[in-house]
Amino acid sequence: MQKDENLKAMLQQLDGYRNYISNQLVSAQFPTNPNNLYDPVRYILDLGGKRMRPILSMMACELFSGEYETATDAAMSVEIFHNFTLIHDDMMDAAPLRRGKETVHTKWNENVGLLSGDVLMIESYKRLAKYDAAILPQLLRLYNSTAIEVCQGQQMDMDFEVRSDVKINDYIEMIRLKTAVLLGCSLQLGALVAKASDENAKAIYNFGCNLGIAFQLQDDILDVYADQEKFGKQVGGDIIANKKTYLMLTALEDANEDQLARLKLLFNESDHAKKVEGVKQLYAELDIRNKAEQQMNAFYNTAMENLAAINIPEDKKLPLKALAMYLLGRES
Amino acid sequence: MQKDENLKAMLQQLDGYRNYISNQLVSAQFPTNPNNLYDPVRYILDLGGKRMRPILSMMACELFSGEYETATDAAMSVEIFHNFTLIHDDMMDAAPLRRGKETVHTKWNENVGLLSGDVLMIESYKRLAKYDAAILPQLLRLYNSTAIEVCQGQQMDMDFEVRSDVKINDYIEMIRLKTAVLLGCSLQLGALVAKASDENAKAIYNFGCNLGIAFQLQDDILDVYADQEKFGKQVGGDIIANKKTYLMLTALEDANEDQLARLKLLFNESDHAKKVEGVKQLYAELDIRNKAEQQMNAFYNTAMENLAAINIPEDKKLPLKALAMYLLGRES
Repeated sequence: MQKDENLKAMLQQLDGYRNYISNQLVSAQFPTNPNNLYDPVRYILDLGGKRMRPILSMMACELFSGEYETATDAAMSVEIFHNFTLIHDDMMDAAPLRRGKETVHTKWNENVGLLSGDVLMIESYKRLAKYDAAILPQLLRLYNSTAIEVCQGQQMDMDFEVRSDVKINDYIEMIRLKTAVLLGCSLQLGALVAKASDENAKAIYNFGCNLGIAFQLQDDILDVYADQEKFGKQVGGDIIANKKTYLMLTALEDANEDQLARLKLLFNESDHAKKVEGVKQLYAELDIRNKAEQQMNAFYNTAMENLAAINIPEDKKLPLKALAMYLLGRES
Repeated sequence: MQKDENLKAMLQQLDGYRNYISNQLVSAQFPTNPNNLYDPVRYILDLGGKRMRPILSMMACELFSGEYETATDAAMSVEIFHNFTLIHDDMMDAAPLRRGKETVHTKWNENVGLLSGDVLMIESYKRLAKYDAAILPQLLRLYNSTAIEVCQGQQMDMDFEVRSDVKINDYIEMIRLKTAVLLGCSLQLGALVAKASDENAKAIYNFGCNLGIAFQLQDDILDVYADQEKFGKQVGGDIIANKKTYLMLTALEDANEDQLARLKLLFNESDHAKKVEGVKQLYAELDIRNKAEQQMNAFYNTAMENLAAINIPEDKKLPLKALAMYLLGRES
């Protein structure tokens, strides 16, 4: 009962942050012309989403200064950057839909997607540039290196699609770069604008990175083992698409000759239900779910150690701890 | 004779700056992996080019401080930004060649062009972020607003291709945004790192903008009236492509009913030689070359006034004056 109340309070707090940043996004001033440049910008920012990155910036800022508003521009910056990556990633993946709506390059065209993505990236820098000269250089250094890492991760992800020699460690590095570092960066920006110490800023960055990797591994696990009723996507989608997830890469490394042959046959199986069943059978033989959960737990535990290492009263860390537990499905 | 000597000295000075920045580009440290992200980066930066933007940054810095080296990172930044725009613009134009070599998206593919362009843009910010906190905020503000204007100009240019109501003033605004502001920005960044006064920094920005517009108008004129022997592209190329240049837009505005009808027929003329001859005949009737040259001269003269307004001994301005004369073919 008490735990349910805590969860409810935490979810309300998240909604508060989410509403705050959504209002900021709605009232953000973009020029009207050229239409074809700014209509897609407003469209993608209005599509919604969890707004997890700006929420992390605000929570980190609140943690160290007690005032999340100081992080508003940093929060806007990471959310706008994230939306730039969505437009360009959707083009690279030739994805027709994003959050149930047409992607920018589908609704307009490739050129519009290309250029409105570019302008969004610059707009994200514009928000960051609003901070004082006293902290701007370190914000910018962190932001630049993170943005470059996100590009590297995206390139690795595309390279992996056509490579047959991807190792588990390559995969962890890819998800770290493609998604985890931006979570770490969002938190660290919030910490830096709150004038946190270098040690605390680094610790909260690591917390975000490790939590991000754990979250991504959970995503791989859920794609195979989620309850279809509660899952937003098709369960087994990664298996059907022959995606090199953590589970598949572990299976490929651990399989014996016979199992490897069966797995490779399954890659070309056109009956989706049969394919998913066959791969799940092999995963069961190889104890893949358990191995993936152990790896996820290891990153989750490291994230918790990073959080514990932050030199600030424990009770102030509760919201971030609750968020981590919620994201990793450990609210009960 | 004396004038020839001056020109020769000026060209040698330009070569000096160009070699300096080319060496900086060659020795720039980019990661090796992922290959598909950084090979295109090194490829486009090695393609050469006039390096006009970084040269402008260094010349402006030299003008105000006597030391062009201070502007190295700003110079790298604008050159890297320019190359980011080349990769993405070539994709939007579906251009197969750039400086006689395959464009990035042709040599690799669209996804590689998209992502290596993105990472180049971030790399350009990385160079800018090397400056002291004391000047970084103003460098960044100028840089962000310029980068956004360049995107706006590119979008306007694409919009113009399918619009039939483009006015001469729209066209001037488009070339100002798409190409001129980056020249102004390159100069102003050089001035700012040299600690020039706000008035001087603004004046040199305006000098670059107006010179850039004059240069673009000259480009439109040369495309029709250049000596084919000396011209790098096909003379009449804009006419053949029905491009809405300053000359064409002026003709469309000044033509009477009969001339307008003839012009519209020529748009569909499939015999290229006949088409170019026909349009040139109409341009002659409407005195278009003269009108375009007057407009170009007006921007050139305003640029010279901007240069004159800079509060610094006149002799120090000679290199920039010589460069302007050289760019606008007035060296004699």
